[in-house]
Amino acid sequence: MKRPSLGQALLAPRSIALVGASDDVSKTSARPLRYLRSAGYEGTIYPINPRRATVLGEQAWPSLADLPSAPDHAFILTPTEGVMEAASECARLGVPVATILASGFSEGGEEGLRLVAELQKLCAETGMRILGPSSLGAINLRHKTIITANAAFAEPDPPTGGIFVASHSGSLLGALISRGKTRNVGFAGLVSVGNEIDLSLGEICSATLDDPEITGYILFLESIRHARDLRTFALAAAERGKPVVAYKLGRSDAAAELALSHTGALAGEDDVAAAFLADCGIARVFNFETLLETLPLLQRMPARVAGARSKRVGVVTTTGGGAAMVVDELSVRGIDVVKPSDETFERLAAAGVKANHERITDLTLAGTRYDIMKASLDIMLSAPEFDIVVAVIGSSARFKPELAVKPAIDSAASSKPLVTFLVPDAPSALAMLTAAGVPNFRTPESCADAVAAALLRRRPVIASTTRHDTTVAATRQLDELAAYELFEKVGVPHAPAVAVAVDAVTITLPFAYPVAVKLLSAEIAHKTEVGGVILNVRTEAELKAAVTKISDNVRSHRPDAQVSKVLVQPMTSGLGEMLLGYRVDPEAGPMVLLAAGGIYTEIYRDRSIRLAPVDVDGARSMISELSITKVFQGFRNKPHGDLEALAHAIVAMSQLAHESTVVVDAEINPLIINRVGEGVVAVDALIAIA
Amino acid sequence: MKRPSLGQALLAPRSIALVGASDDVSKTSARPLRYLRSAGYEGTIYPINPRRATVLGEQAWPSLADLPSAPDHAFILTPTEGVMEAASECARLGVPVATILASGFSEGGEEGLRLVAELQKLCAETGMRILGPSSLGAINLRHKTIITANAAFAEPDPPTGGIFVASHSGSLLGALISRGKTRNVGFAGLVSVGNEIDLSLGEICSATLDDPEITGYILFLESIRHARDLRTFALAAAERGKPVVAYKLGRSDAAAELALSHTGALAGEDDVAAAFLADCGIARVFNFETLLETLPLLQRMPARVAGARSKRVGVVTTTGGGAAMVVDELSVRGIDVVKPSDETFERLAAAGVKANHERITDLTLAGTRYDIMKASLDIMLSAPEFDIVVAVIGSSARFKPELAVKPAIDSAASSKPLVTFLVPDAPSALAMLTAAGVPNFRTPESCADAVAAALLRRRPVIASTTRHDTTVAATRQLDELAAYELFEKVGVPHAPAVAVAVDAVTITLPFAYPVAVKLLSAEIAHKTEVGGVILNVRTEAELKAAVTKISDNVRSHRPDAQVSKVLVQPMTSGLGEMLLGYRVDPEAGPMVLLAAGGIYTEIYRDRSIRLAPVDVDGARSMISELSITKVFQGFRNKPHGDLEALAHAIVAMSQLAHESTVVVDAEINPLIINRVGEGVVAVDALIAIA
Repeated sequence: MKRPSLGQALLAPRSIALVGASDDVSKTSARPLRYLRSAGYEGTIYPINPRRATVLGEQAWPSLADLPSAPDHAFILTPTEGVMEAASECARLGVPVATILASGFSEGGEEGLRLVAELQKLCAETGMRILGPSSLGAINLRHKTIITANAAFAEPDPPTGGIFVASHSGSLLGALISRGKTRNVGFAGLVSVGNEIDLSLGEICSATLDDPEITGYILFLESIRHARDLRTFALAAAERGKPVVAYKLGRSDAAAELALSHTGALAGEDDVAAAFLADCGIARVFNFETLLETLPLLQRMPARVAGARSKRVGVVTTTGGGAAMVVDELSVRGIDVVKPSDETFERLAAAGVKANHERITDLTLAGTRYDIMKASLDIMLSAPEFDIVVAVIGSSARFKPELAVKPAIDSAASSKPLVTFLVPDAPSALAMLTAAGVPNFRTPESCADAVAAALLRRRPVIASTTRHDTTVAATRQLDELAAYELFEKVGVPHAPAVAVAVDAVTITLPFAYPVAVKLLSAEIAHKTEVGGVILNVRTEAELKAAVTKISDNVRSHRPDAQVSKVLVQPMTSGLGEMLLGYRVDPEAGPMVLLAAGGIYTEIYRDRSIRLAPVDVDGARSMISELSITKVFQGFRNKPHGDLEALAHAIVAMSQLAHESTVVVDAEINPLIINRVGEGVVAVDALIAIA
Repeated sequence: MKRPSLGQALLAPRSIALVGASDDVSKTSARPLRYLRSAGYEGTIYPINPRRATVLGEQAWPSLADLPSAPDHAFILTPTEGVMEAASECARLGVPVATILASGFSEGGEEGLRLVAELQKLCAETGMRILGPSSLGAINLRHKTIITANAAFAEPDPPTGGIFVASHSGSLLGALISRGKTRNVGFAGLVSVGNEIDLSLGEICSATLDDPEITGYILFLESIRHARDLRTFALAAAERGKPVVAYKLGRSDAAAELALSHTGALAGEDDVAAAFLADCGIARVFNFETLLETLPLLQRMPARVAGARSKRVGVVTTTGGGAAMVVDELSVRGIDVVKPSDETFERLAAAGVKANHERITDLTLAGTRYDIMKASLDIMLSAPEFDIVVAVIGSSARFKPELAVKPAIDSAASSKPLVTFLVPDAPSALAMLTAAGVPNFRTPESCADAVAAALLRRRPVIASTTRHDTTVAATRQLDELAAYELFEKVGVPHAPAVAVAVDAVTITLPFAYPVAVKLLSAEIAHKTEVGGVILNVRTEAELKAAVTKISDNVRSHRPDAQVSKVLVQPMTSGLGEMLLGYRVDPEAGPMVLLAAGGIYTEIYRDRSIRLAPVDVDGARSMISELSITKVFQGFRNKPHGDLEALAHAIVAMSQLAHESTVVVDAEINPLIINRVGEGVVAVDALIAIA
């Protein structure tokens, strides 16, 4: 028999062995056979049970070795203790994919991790692939292949459609199935990826990409694991125009508190994950139900290029209160609802639509008529001032969808996306909209969540570097002067700096006083903590005294350290300070961080993160994301800061990914922002190399 | 006939006139008669229509004057132009309440406002009360009194229950009715309050407080209007143990951008409204659907005293992924899910419950059994480390509620509140829980929203002052020294300060150099802008020069201003700076503001607001709400700040409400925070008085 592809073995196997299938219907291990049979699976099922001749009325086999041929897929249902033996037997017989239900591996302490290593060795040696452990299975609804122990698949007629789901949580597949059914959203396949000790979520999704019936992907993520596989999948999905939407856990304060301001401590933080997902072109939603509701919108709305900041929403409604909720929720997400232009108001008036000249085009109860709603939608959808139009439909949606829901269906073929939020409970109207492919939402929060996710979705950045293949740890620091030299190469400006020997007899500076004097050392990263910084030094005499003082301070704090030089720089103060950092994340690859300087980086977590390289548009969009940016935009009548120079510094910093294969961590804190035309300058620099 | 009370006339009238009732069923003005009849209204209905003998088959009356007696309630359905005449006629005949459907009044420009004034005059002169204009009506479901033109009341069998709804948006009443029906949540009454030109939302709710069948209130607010009436109602509701939950629009960035750091510009801002609602004991939710789902929880969970900061949630689940979503959403709202104590784990183990020693008590699929869930819930509900327990129930809730939903119902009688979130779509289980009075939620967001609202709800502050009756504008500033004198009276500490005449020949200071020298003037509030501040003055000679310089600077900037004195203070620097303010809001009354100092007040809007007076517990809770507080809690190994002294300064500031009836605005910026034991000191002060 021809060896199946990974996708076939995983999701469309010709034969399935159920290792440890139980005859007791109350047992979890009895479920897969029942679900496969009731779904009408057309392949061969081999229940394996050494203690019984039959299982649930079907012939059982005493062991895998007794089977007439190796199955395409084995679902190992045995308790943890029996898994290793069953997996080894599968591998020996040439089973392409084994799914492991039991837990107690990755989360099972030392013994669990030993078993993980053993399973991984087995895969490496034999080519067998493992789904799980702790996987509730893999389901292919069209192929009637319900390889799962998830009780939710007792669901009669699970809804079939074009969505593929991959989830870190197996139990949530059930929630998606039942909620999808209620909302008329159907699935092609669903996989509980478990611990991902071998097959990763990204690999599994990639294996399904060529299935033409799969139109989009839903990911439920506990964290970002196997980032490279996920990225590979996301880029390929983007290329095929198949949208991906993710819900990710881990937005907790607790996680945020683990953070330091240093870019070296980014891993695992939610905003890094957010940056990664965004740079992969994956739309992220924050409401669970939005996961189910967003793909139709993403399918109608291509991802935007980084830096395209136009996010203009037009709103038409028959209920001002209902629309106001959406406007409010959008606004909280930084999305503007814009007022129609005068020309649009004129076109509306000419079409007999009475609307106040306000941000929301409120047709009121009087406008709850097919002709009025249809004309309004057509005019709004063709108006150049909107990127997307939201129709908020009131009570008529429940009993008279022909009045305001039907026009939304009839106008939706427009080249601009139209989405609908139905304010009353109106399941039939929602179903009509879904059937017609019109994005529809049952809460204002979910509507705004999806619209924001669609408007914020970016085209993935294709990095021209393979830097994220290096999972290297920093081994040493560069001293400040060496760091500046590296920054000079890529084009990040810094303040003038000269090294002065601590035993220098006369010191002549190439710049004027006052100056800052700092310890110059590759050994000591935190100069201030050892008394290694003296500011506002005004004369040569003061400078000599400062050098001596620093030398003494450091000797008393760190008797082991070599102190031969200090760095002298002119005192610099601009309009304000920022932090600019770069880091090679072992999972996500090289990333650039821009943050408010000083203590505010930590207190307010006011920062923006992107995968490197960043182009100037991307850099401008990073700048626009920070609250502190307002300070440099004429805040309190102060002069404007040189944000264009800042954008170029960000681009330059991101070039470290190309310039050097050894930099793993770089930080400028502070980067001084001067007035427009006067640039930005680094006045401190840390670089860690491998 | 006995004159009815306001509540009776509004919501249980014995007779209703429908002024302008239409015979054309397609007209909005035909609806009230149809709805009243199909509901089975038992009183008398008088359709008024001068052009027809019958309306929808019933006898019509040519005018109000022709009626055999004055009706208890008139619903004026005429277009805007006819409203004034109809209202006057109602008033003349002694109709107690007239509801006006038409719009074009408060929002109708100059002519609209003229009509509003005329209607208000009519009410003042005759005692008639007006609901609206722009009111979609008043509905009393138990009394079958469906006085509305809202198409949603075509709903057969609208759900009857204990909730009273008052809404700024009439159309949202329909959404609540249909969604309530689906969720088995029933209503006593619903009122569309319209423009509130006479009857305010607060007055209307107050009129229903003695109805024993009303168990709780839902408010849909566009903004805070008629704050005093709302507060009066909220305090009375709290006294009767009837919870109030509100959804409020207006969280937009646009609103935030209108803000200045000065406490004088707070009105209309969402966080001021939030403070007001919280200080009234009103729970605020942020998801629309949560409005319908929260009252059962509030009924089981008394409001807490201000400063009670214990917000500890325990979570039991059969689905780790589902529970993690709730934990995440709670965490975003600042609510901690806490791990059970060792003793609780021991009790769980003794009861045969297998649970990992983690924050979430995850029973897993294996624990999806009545006995396991029941034992777990009983143990968690009796554990002293939790204030509330959340049960997150997976797929079994859909098909086998007897496994994990039933135990939640059986355990819910506990003295501690138990809430449930069902992860799959499980309408029957939700209905079972609702029928049993167990708070239940269908999304993780709504569950967390309600739990947070319940834990954050405070007992209302009963102000012992009537300061909010003065809607006064500031007319003049005090100079800094006069401001300090006033702060001294209430006990807000300030830095030593002496006034020095600009023409003084010798200056002897009662404190050491270096000092700060500032213009002392009641005319010029922003000293820095006129060159009126010189810092770090080290000697008497420098001081004299500084005085001359300030004098010159001010003269050149403001030739009109009198400059006779400067203020001299020792230079002070502590661990950091805050802003402490006080303001009499014309609607909400006296309020205290604590905010991060410097530019960060505006950039990050890091602030906390309370109605005055604030006690020391309330002040501590304000401090704990600010992100900047971390800086004074050992941040980066710095010493701790004197937050107790800060709390006492807040309390003292809030005493301005008692001390002075003329202060309308006061601000200390900066208030220097010193180390623990060293207090806080004001080093600048602005007070505006009436």
